Amino acid sequence: MIGGLDEEHALFANAAFYQAFADRDAAAMDALWARSHPVTCLHPGWNPLTDREDIVDSWRAILDNADAPKVTSRGARAFVSAGTVLVLCYERIGDAVLVASNLFAMEDGAARIVHHQAGPCAHPPVGDDRPETLQ
Amino acid sequence: MIGGLDEEHALFANAAFYQAFADRDAAAMDALWARSHPVTCLHPGWNPLTDREDIVDSWRAILDNADAPKVTSRGARAFVSAGTVLVLCYERIGDAVLVASNLFAMEDGAARIVHHQAGPCAHPPVGDDRPETLQ
Repeated sequence: MIGGLDEEHALFANAAFYQAFADRDAAAMDALWARSHPVTCLHPGWNPLTDREDIVDSWRAILDNADAPKVTSRGARAFVSAGTVLVLCYERIGDAVLVASNLFAMEDGAARIVHHQAGPCAHPPVGDDRPETLQ
Repeated sequence: MIGGLDEEHALFANAAFYQAFADRDAAAMDALWARSHPVTCLHPGWNPLTDREDIVDSWRAILDNADAPKVTSRGARAFVSAGTVLVLCYERIGDAVLVASNLFAMEDGAARIVHHQAGPCAHPPVGDDRPETLQ
């Protein structure tokens, strides 16, 4: 436990993030983003978002898109550095595979996301023929 | 100053990172990556790298490639969370524009990079006709 936040908290919050994504639950997604830390979100191909309201609106637009393919996450691994925890995982979105960096910080006793970036990775990723874990 | 690391330190280290990249200086790049924190690096289209030696080797391969286009960074902004500082900036690599997340932590009194991810962004980015800053 460093700075009140450990790997387990961050991995749980990361799982909640992808559950909200899969469930298209905009309220749950909103609740997961920090309010007392600066927040940043880099959707692939978008302009960088650095305003909390813009970020929540972007997720609402993504989650409200009925044509959006199903998303699942795999292979999450946590890396603790100085009070924050970075979680890397694969995102499967339809036939595409992206790799995501999700950064968590503690806020009011809970792990909250402060940064998300998803981008292209090798396909198939290493480990694709095994349980899909980051190496 | 939080956890010994402030925005100025992180932005300076971020500038040193791109200077090493532009100068193809593998030794300087090696020195900038943390040794006492876990380190992660997501080059676009690669498998995620989570081993320091793999990361340094990947940069050596990139920097040793004589055909690689020139790189410059623009519009760096720092976001402090707990004891880490996230720097977002644009990377211009030849005609391409990427957006990068660079995460810094304090180590032995200096800001060291613990995570890098570069990926696609809107092109041209917002602000491209003005001094190129993240919004």
